[in-house]
Amino acid sequence: MSKSEQFASDNYSGICPQAWAAMAEANRSDEPAYGEDIWTQRASDGLRALFDTDCDVYFVFNGTAANSLALASIGQSFHSVICHEMAHIENDECGGPEYASNGAKLLLGHGPDGKLTPASIEQLVTKRSDIHFPKPKALSLTQSTELGTVYTPEELRAIRTVADRHKLSIHMDGARFANAVAALDVHPSEITWKVGVDVLCFSGTKNGLALGEAVVFFNRKLAEDFEWRCKQAGQLASKMRFISAPWCGLLADNVWLDNARHANACAKRLADGLVGLPGIELRHPRQVNGVFVELPELVQTALRAKGWRFYNFIGGCSRLVCSWSTTDAQVDKFLSDLRALVL
Amino acid sequence: MSKSEQFASDNYSGICPQAWAAMAEANRSDEPAYGEDIWTQRASDGLRALFDTDCDVYFVFNGTAANSLALASIGQSFHSVICHEMAHIENDECGGPEYASNGAKLLLGHGPDGKLTPASIEQLVTKRSDIHFPKPKALSLTQSTELGTVYTPEELRAIRTVADRHKLSIHMDGARFANAVAALDVHPSEITWKVGVDVLCFSGTKNGLALGEAVVFFNRKLAEDFEWRCKQAGQLASKMRFISAPWCGLLADNVWLDNARHANACAKRLADGLVGLPGIELRHPRQVNGVFVELPELVQTALRAKGWRFYNFIGGCSRLVCSWSTTDAQVDKFLSDLRALVL
Amino acid sequence: MSKSEQFASDNYSGICPQAWAAMAEANRSDEPAYGEDIWTQRASDGLRALFDTDCDVYFVFNGTAANSLALASIGQSFHSVICHEMAHIENDECGGPEYASNGAKLLLGHGPDGKLTPASIEQLVTKRSDIHFPKPKALSLTQSTELGTVYTPEELRAIRTVADRHKLSIHMDGARFANAVAALDVHPSEITWKVGVDVLCFSGTKNGLALGEAVVFFNRKLAEDFEWRCKQAGQLASKMRFISAPWCGLLADNVWLDNARHANACAKRLADGLVGLPGIELRHPRQVNGVFVELPELVQTALRAKGWRFYNFIGGCSRLVCSWSTTDAQVDKFLSDLRALVL
Amino acid sequence: MSKSEQFASDNYSGICPQAWAAMAEANRSDEPAYGEDIWTQRASDGLRALFDTDCDVYFVFNGTAANSLALASIGQSFHSVICHEMAHIENDECGGPEYASNGAKLLLGHGPDGKLTPASIEQLVTKRSDIHFPKPKALSLTQSTELGTVYTPEELRAIRTVADRHKLSIHMDGARFANAVAALDVHPSEITWKVGVDVLCFSGTKNGLALGEAVVFFNRKLAEDFEWRCKQAGQLASKMRFISAPWCGLLADNVWLDNARHANACAKRLADGLVGLPGIELRHPRQVNGVFVELPELVQTALRAKGWRFYNFIGGCSRLVCSWSTTDAQVDKFLSDLRALVL
Repeated sequence: MSKSEQFASDNYSGICPQAWAAMAEANRSDEPAYGEDIWTQRASDGLRALFDTDCDVYFVFNGTAANSLALASIGQSFHSVICHEMAHIENDECGGPEYASNGAKLLLGHGPDGKLTPASIEQLVTKRSDIHFPKPKALSLTQSTELGTVYTPEELRAIRTVADRHKLSIHMDGARFANAVAALDVHPSEITWKVGVDVLCFSGTKNGLALGEAVVFFNRKLAEDFEWRCKQAGQLASKMRFISAPWCGLLADNVWLDNARHANACAKRLADGLVGLPGIELRHPRQVNGVFVELPELVQTALRAKGWRFYNFIGGCSRLVCSWSTTDAQVDKFLSDLRALVL
Repeated sequence: MSKSEQFASDNYSGICPQAWAAMAEANRSDEPAYGEDIWTQRASDGLRALFDTDCDVYFVFNGTAANSLALASIGQSFHSVICHEMAHIENDECGGPEYASNGAKLLLGHGPDGKLTPASIEQLVTKRSDIHFPKPKALSLTQSTELGTVYTPEELRAIRTVADRHKLSIHMDGARFANAVAALDVHPSEITWKVGVDVLCFSGTKNGLALGEAVVFFNRKLAEDFEWRCKQAGQLASKMRFISAPWCGLLADNVWLDNARHANACAKRLADGLVGLPGIELRHPRQVNGVFVELPELVQTALRAKGWRFYNFIGGCSRLVCSWSTTDAQVDKFLSDLRALVL
Repeated sequence: MSKSEQFASDNYSGICPQAWAAMAEANRSDEPAYGEDIWTQRASDGLRALFDTDCDVYFVFNGTAANSLALASIGQSFHSVICHEMAHIENDECGGPEYASNGAKLLLGHGPDGKLTPASIEQLVTKRSDIHFPKPKALSLTQSTELGTVYTPEELRAIRTVADRHKLSIHMDGARFANAVAALDVHPSEITWKVGVDVLCFSGTKNGLALGEAVVFFNRKLAEDFEWRCKQAGQLASKMRFISAPWCGLLADNVWLDNARHANACAKRLADGLVGLPGIELRHPRQVNGVFVELPELVQTALRAKGWRFYNFIGGCSRLVCSWSTTDAQVDKFLSDLRALVL
Repeated sequence: MSKSEQFASDNYSGICPQAWAAMAEANRSDEPAYGEDIWTQRASDGLRALFDTDCDVYFVFNGTAANSLALASIGQSFHSVICHEMAHIENDECGGPEYASNGAKLLLGHGPDGKLTPASIEQLVTKRSDIHFPKPKALSLTQSTELGTVYTPEELRAIRTVADRHKLSIHMDGARFANAVAALDVHPSEITWKVGVDVLCFSGTKNGLALGEAVVFFNRKLAEDFEWRCKQAGQLASKMRFISAPWCGLLADNVWLDNARHANACAKRLADGLVGLPGIELRHPRQVNGVFVELPELVQTALRAKGWRFYNFIGGCSRLVCSWSTTDAQVDKFLSDLRALVL
């Protein structure tokens, strides 16, 4: 597969040069295992500096693990987690959160453009309070959302108010957290601990790593014994430096943010090019690195015949995702192929 | 840390050149995620060719996950797993198997040099058969063992006979499987499916990868829906090719075997050099890449002061482990430092 | 509380005379524990005779346990269970099935009057087949349903056809199974194993016992090692005879069926009396022992002020439940009190 | 089975008259379900009065559930529980604690006569502190022990000191708690909260109920949301009054203590009669209601041929257990039969 033919997913992309270089450097010598190496210390400190607070940082292999273990650290098996009906933890993690918590239930909330509303949360929390139904304990927000939109600091604050009222901890699924920071042009703290996020799963994979997510506990009480949890769940890398060194590569010179800005810009270029084409309609505001668009089925087939890869979402809408490795040329070629089909 | 100063663990070592090259090649283009790439297909086929049988192959992140999920696929929460009292699954996985199985119990057997004996297995299986105690369902063997020894094909056959008598499936923890193949000079099939091993966890990490273990089901019925199990447990890599391509690097030209032979040879050189030194005694036959030795405490302290790293095992015995990256020079320097202390 | 003032639940009622007598008889002597007594043998044989097939029978303490453990015996943590959105396992067991299975997901189907339709099942099974979502493995039907309706043998056969197509095992939540048999006037086999039900949770509690549900496996392969599962889950009674002897009391002379017929008849009497009263409307056909009715809020308040107890369901509808101990006088008094309010 | 022929177990006995009478009274009227009845309130208050402290009380069906859920409320899946190698939770609950906690490990301590020593606890806690092994969080003591002995208040205080040093919560398995209180002639508080027990599982079953154990949290923080835990685990009785009313029967006029004293006295009479018989030797001090004795195998066979039932423990020792329903005549007949065999 050539790099220029896919908008399927940001996890189709490879390892970015800076992460690669850090990995190469980490491979120059032997290092202690299980995170007792200098790279892991450096990456953890880097994240604490980035967020400008004394948070607890752990690295795990992938997003399902990060989300599932973070949620398990908030509640028990008889608790429930409120999330948007489109959330990844509900639709794409094969029951990972239920498994890691030994049975916690996800309660599905609603809201336009993939964003939970305070009213929807309120409705779910207050619907039941008897012991015959799991007690809400956590709130999971995806930033940016599955539909390529972002929660503003104000929206997050409003949600925190509801959460406070009902003693809910807030988990943030940050599979595309970097893209949200880039889009909102805020300091990372402004959409996390400053608005009451307790734990963030910050994805490195979609941002240019081979693998490796950071679980960042702003509420450090929730992190109690979390290293044991990771170990038991098969999420403690023995050669940890090959996760943490690439993270150092991302953190140095704000590569993570540049990667996200680049992906967002490509998506903007793509969306701009789509606007106004006959028979083609954007769905959801394009705010980060994904473009959701309705394409006539014949057009989809023709594009795929030309080698373009992309996924269709529930409801027939096509999702076009850009990454750190997407190029303007690739966007332009797609638009040109598309225009040739519809104009 | 310089490469030449540690015998702490084979997971202190880095990525071997062939695995690195394959990873670099895999990074040249975008690829489909979740194992639908060409590298994963190639690595799986490569393992089937290596074992000369139509086995089911899955890649997971680390050894704890490989062992825990493989065991969970054999039994239920109310079953038990028989293993040696020194087994990694008992002592070093923080209850991973118990967690993945939702509560299965490990029953601890015995035997010299870290090897379970048929008699010990028989004793454990027949001790209880009432419903107030977990029912034995699996047998877990470590090949090579935690004490650096190997089961011969004959020993494995004798164990299979007991296992058959009691309908036990056999799991093989192959954290150092390559070293066992190298030491026994057998075809990989001769110590796995030909002697009735149902599922093997074949480690890539200790053999020269950054991470990534192959779970190889020779008994394919046990693999039913295993891909769902991996996904739910947070063990499905999105950018899978960065696990499978390096495996291709190991499999081509039998790099995996050369790496293991090299590590074993270094350990032999080390053990040979230790024999006869005053106050120093080898424990357990040196058969693979680890040397277990009793060193006077003052000697240990002096070696550590010179920068050497190694672990002490239960009972005060020191473990010296070689890997693909250990050099003769490193072995010789250690021996020379040691001789200077004791002669 | 006097017996005559509640329609809240059939589990507000006590122990029926025949069950009590059997319990008294069982208390006359000491007996072996853990089900090795004569009563447990007798009750199990009685259920096999009742269903006219060689099924496997286990007794557990309550319905949540019966349903959860039966479902856990069908699938794994990464599987899913299809049930009606109104099902007890979804709404009233606090995540019991998720817990016992270590994370299986419930997929919610639809259908009028609390009954799953084949089309709804088909839709749920075929919606997803990728590994990012739990794989459907079981179908759970409540007979009679949470809304007081029953599946006919024909409806069950149609469902079995869909289940066969997708290799789903069928679990029947028989919290009010007896009432369904009574209402349909069929042999118990005609709505269970003859239409492909794999496992039935047959409630004794709602039928006149203090506690104790029978888990009846028609598909005996699913019952493998189920006694260990019960023991581990805290569902093996040491003095088992105090569950099984009362079951003998229910089974002798078809007391279970008489109890159900009586409860159904009371509900019919109640429903008949409600029809035509101004401002009062029945919801769902009254088929078993529950009457679902819309009562003006002021009327509800007035009835409660008179000491009547009953629950409101989602949507404001009141549920009036009759049991083996409900009396005609009680029904008539309620109707008289109600008529005094609305006429 | 006649009452006079067994010393197999105190759970072979039936329901004592006072519990039966309370159950009969509770059966006179309908009652709210799920513990919202007057009996449950009364029994809970009764236990608070008995222990003379404001503890949290929950009723569950059996001992495995009580122990497993209480332990799960103390720790997480990656924690460990220290108990005596002879403990019921290790040997006779089929992995119940591991299941309820989703994988916690039991660490086996030692000590004469079934009692954990502070030194053994200290040794287990300090053996490992790395993340590759479950972290000790709870200490489980059986009072009275599996070998019929009791911990004195002084011994419990010494254990609490070790527990404090390592931040361990103390769980007490009180399957025969009543017998311990009777034997020690102390106030129940003196061997529970006054010596730092956090949660007690107080058995009603072995004391004269059909079933039903009280989980008594002296450390009320551990009881947070425990009612949800019970519900999810299938341990919330719908007709709760049939557990709690019999408990009221036990609590009134100290029936529970009389029952225990009676059982203890029978065991004393039995032990006294055994002393000095040729070829017969008592093992462990007889302190409560069980007598552990070495009987020649031929004698065992002859006794069983006469209809006597009793179990053999590991090591060939016979266990003779008395209960509230054992009679002096039964003891004397056993002794007479035995004397006829050995004199």
